[in-house]
Amino acid sequence: MSTSMPERSFTIGVDYGTNSVRALVVDTADGAEIGTAVWNYATGTAGVWLDPKDPHLARQHPQDYIDGFLHAVRDALLEAAGTPGFSIDRVVGIGVDTTGSTPIPVDADGLALGLRPEFASNLDALAWLWKDHTGAFEAVEITEKARAGGFPYLEKCGGVYSSEWFWSKILHCARVAPEVFAAAHSWVEMQDYIPGWLTGNQRPDRVPRGICAAGHKAMYHRDWGGLPSKAFLATLDPRVAELRDRLYSDTVAVDTAAGTLLPWIAREVGLPDGILVAVGAFDAHLGAIGSGIKPGTLVKIMGTSTCDIMVGDISTPDIPGVCGVVPGSVIPGMIGVEAGQSAVGDLFNWPASLSGQSHGDLNREAEMLAPGESGLIALDWNNGNRTILVDQLLSGLLVGQTLYTSMPEIYRAMIEATAYGTRMIIERIEEFGVPVQEIVVCGGIAEKSPLTMQIYADVCNRPFKTSRSAQTCALGSAVAASVVAGAHASFGEAVDAMTGVKDRVFAPNPAAVAVYERLFQLYRQLHDAFGRKAHPDAMYNVMKDLIAIRKEATA
Amino acid sequence: MSTSMPERSFTIGVDYGTNSVRALVVDTADGAEIGTAVWNYATGTAGVWLDPKDPHLARQHPQDYIDGFLHAVRDALLEAAGTPGFSIDRVVGIGVDTTGSTPIPVDADGLALGLRPEFASNLDALAWLWKDHTGAFEAVEITEKARAGGFPYLEKCGGVYSSEWFWSKILHCARVAPEVFAAAHSWVEMQDYIPGWLTGNQRPDRVPRGICAAGHKAMYHRDWGGLPSKAFLATLDPRVAELRDRLYSDTVAVDTAAGTLLPWIAREVGLPDGILVAVGAFDAHLGAIGSGIKPGTLVKIMGTSTCDIMVGDISTPDIPGVCGVVPGSVIPGMIGVEAGQSAVGDLFNWPASLSGQSHGDLNREAEMLAPGESGLIALDWNNGNRTILVDQLLSGLLVGQTLYTSMPEIYRAMIEATAYGTRMIIERIEEFGVPVQEIVVCGGIAEKSPLTMQIYADVCNRPFKTSRSAQTCALGSAVAASVVAGAHASFGEAVDAMTGVKDRVFAPNPAAVAVYERLFQLYRQLHDAFGRKAHPDAMYNVMKDLIAIRKEATA
Repeated sequence: MSTSMPERSFTIGVDYGTNSVRALVVDTADGAEIGTAVWNYATGTAGVWLDPKDPHLARQHPQDYIDGFLHAVRDALLEAAGTPGFSIDRVVGIGVDTTGSTPIPVDADGLALGLRPEFASNLDALAWLWKDHTGAFEAVEITEKARAGGFPYLEKCGGVYSSEWFWSKILHCARVAPEVFAAAHSWVEMQDYIPGWLTGNQRPDRVPRGICAAGHKAMYHRDWGGLPSKAFLATLDPRVAELRDRLYSDTVAVDTAAGTLLPWIAREVGLPDGILVAVGAFDAHLGAIGSGIKPGTLVKIMGTSTCDIMVGDISTPDIPGVCGVVPGSVIPGMIGVEAGQSAVGDLFNWPASLSGQSHGDLNREAEMLAPGESGLIALDWNNGNRTILVDQLLSGLLVGQTLYTSMPEIYRAMIEATAYGTRMIIERIEEFGVPVQEIVVCGGIAEKSPLTMQIYADVCNRPFKTSRSAQTCALGSAVAASVVAGAHASFGEAVDAMTGVKDRVFAPNPAAVAVYERLFQLYRQLHDAFGRKAHPDAMYNVMKDLIAIRKEATA
Repeated sequence: MSTSMPERSFTIGVDYGTNSVRALVVDTADGAEIGTAVWNYATGTAGVWLDPKDPHLARQHPQDYIDGFLHAVRDALLEAAGTPGFSIDRVVGIGVDTTGSTPIPVDADGLALGLRPEFASNLDALAWLWKDHTGAFEAVEITEKARAGGFPYLEKCGGVYSSEWFWSKILHCARVAPEVFAAAHSWVEMQDYIPGWLTGNQRPDRVPRGICAAGHKAMYHRDWGGLPSKAFLATLDPRVAELRDRLYSDTVAVDTAAGTLLPWIAREVGLPDGILVAVGAFDAHLGAIGSGIKPGTLVKIMGTSTCDIMVGDISTPDIPGVCGVVPGSVIPGMIGVEAGQSAVGDLFNWPASLSGQSHGDLNREAEMLAPGESGLIALDWNNGNRTILVDQLLSGLLVGQTLYTSMPEIYRAMIEATAYGTRMIIERIEEFGVPVQEIVVCGGIAEKSPLTMQIYADVCNRPFKTSRSAQTCALGSAVAASVVAGAHASFGEAVDAMTGVKDRVFAPNPAAVAVYERLFQLYRQLHDAFGRKAHPDAMYNVMKDLIAIRKEATA
């Protein structure tokens, strides 16, 4: 082999999802995926610890995170081993993405409390999964107190704080599980916990904190000196104000190394010592990178929930109702914009689990329906609304049923509901002067359900593209690792080399567009009537009252 | 045996339901049920012919009516044969009740068109089952033209004509199936068709027409000379105006004999010649008699749909939105009041068929939920609203779902929705000065689901009783036959002797009453917003628009 040929190198992307961990071994030259493995979490219900008495609770066990890395990375490397030109000596970096905001209470050594025997089965001591909404009332309180006190903290997160986010969860823990709160020396986002653990930089005062979680979920911003002030936190709870000293003041982006892989972990998975581990970020943000994000491109990372990611230059404005506008959160040097829908795949799971029918069957039958044929319309709020209402105390609505309404019709109505929600987000982003010139979708749904892609194209009256990779989050993590390890000089160069879209584009069908235009007006009517407090149609109380009555009924 | 003992006598009640025919052999002395048999209709889907393209269509084949009588009566008599004191010589009468309004197109001989080979599989030539709503737009037209023309015809039927009723169906037939309409010499309600066939008085000009169907569904009233005038009918369609001459001018009540059982039918079922057959009435009306109706008692006949029946003296007022206030329609000499809900058991079938779970399982799991615990509320309009909105172009609504909402929760929400609908009806009847002093429920649901009875008691904050008989409609038909045959001197005497309620009374539970009071306010809010045109909350268009879009999508 000529010495003038650049040496081939490979990176590993590790994607922590809601139900499983995926590892992907990638060629840094062209993004070729040469080894992959998935490990399903061993505990809880498909990895999620639930409380039968409270549908808002969702936790995960940190032991699953450790086991998941070891299994998935080892297996992915075994698969890669057969590829000509690959050897473990050419692995130069590891990148990690996780769900979030998924804060984990840790002790002074940085050990997750759930890994200590006395807390191993205490739901409140585990990881508070992104879709945990137990802090819904705390979210309302945080929003109200920030507004009432004239604090600027909501400017970068759409003007409304969410129950899915860092402070809502921590404040709720302080109130319902004071013994756990007291035992927690600090709280670490999952995206930071994993790289800290992998590199031995686990102590709360040493673990690198990524800007992605900090900026989008913890109200961290340079403009106001990092995290919200103690004065503000004291209005919530003096214990939370004290906690601020044991959190962090600095953040880093995904072009930074968190450290090198611990020797014992390297041995376990079959890697040499000294491999660099990149700072972590949320799955959606690294998924956007794995989908080839650039200015003007909206990347939709569709999974159990959906994140919508854009990047823009420094002039990108704050957008009310959009969950985050944060410098460097996606690509270092650019403004990251994040919106999202709290339930997408989870919403499609609902009719499947109600009926025991498979997604494949439901999809096939739903595909045979014409737009409007079911007579149904739904709101996509079974898990609350993340954008643009930012209200986790909203719930599902289905209207138009007859006695003959079938599960495939409901299934299709759920797909359509998420498409209407997508259109609301696009309209809001453009309304504030950020043009959406291209839409790229990634995630399992884009792969498995052409029906969903077509409905989205028809509802939004725009072409929808799909990412070339079937595992863009893991690929994005591998891209980050390639930049950290020096295989590429910049994210722009790495994205160009390692990512792409598929040939098939879902183009809007004019006849369907016309029907969906009418249905979307009904969606908007229901959305505004049930979701907006000040709306004259005044149905806003209905979902709130039902939740209040349920809370009392189950108290 | 002493000759001073009155001779024992027996009557047979035959109840034509939506899915089956039931025959019941009854002792006229005490209502003892000594023989019973059910025959499921052999054709269609559980007896109902559906159109996969139109969920509003529901028809039945008249051959099932013939086969059903022969099988069910023969089998019931075989069972009765073992009872000491019974012999076929002591059978003195037969009474018949049917669903309705279920009009049947007939030829000049009175033969149902569906029994003629050329029409045997023509959906429009079959019986137009009560729950067929294909005439929804015709119902609106009838209401509007009656109002616009200043005709009084809506006064006795709640002010709004329904798509479930006689003229809506006939007018729709004239429009969509002119060849069937032209071939129909006349139209006969199923309640009249069966006694006509049984007695050989089948010809349209001879078949006795019961006041029950005529008064409640065909706008027949002495005040305006019987059926609506030709002038009015001509505003709908000149062919319908001509049809009036081939319908009827007189009606009779259930204390009248339609004739005697045809010898060939008597032989088929094992009865002697000469048995009297009473004029027929709707299942709900004879069910009310079988449940012991008297002034102040509301009888709820709960089945696939529910009818609410009361009787009052001559001063009983017209009640807006209540489907009928008709002299002699229940008990001769008293005013019959009929309200109802278009789907009750059918609404409980919906989650069962969606999930494949049994009613028994769903009931058991729903029973374990506290009021309000599911966080759900539903409208009971999957089959439209019969009372008090009288609008078949309304549809179902479910609100409050999370990602974890289960089928038993939806099932319970459906039960609760029908309870709220029941309360709306009771409040409307009392508002117009007819006090409801006692509620007696009959029908399969009252037997099988104590949960449903308890929810009704809690939602309405009133005790709910259940009828002693499990087959009150057939029993009521047997009561009518006993009066017609002279075994009792009056309906009052027959009802006292032959009917009763069970010991168990469902009393309201104060804690549940309090929760349901709050939920009912939300139901009323949704009911008024989605169901009332003039309501300020203005969601009235939503269900209408969905139906209009569906019609176009499936055109």
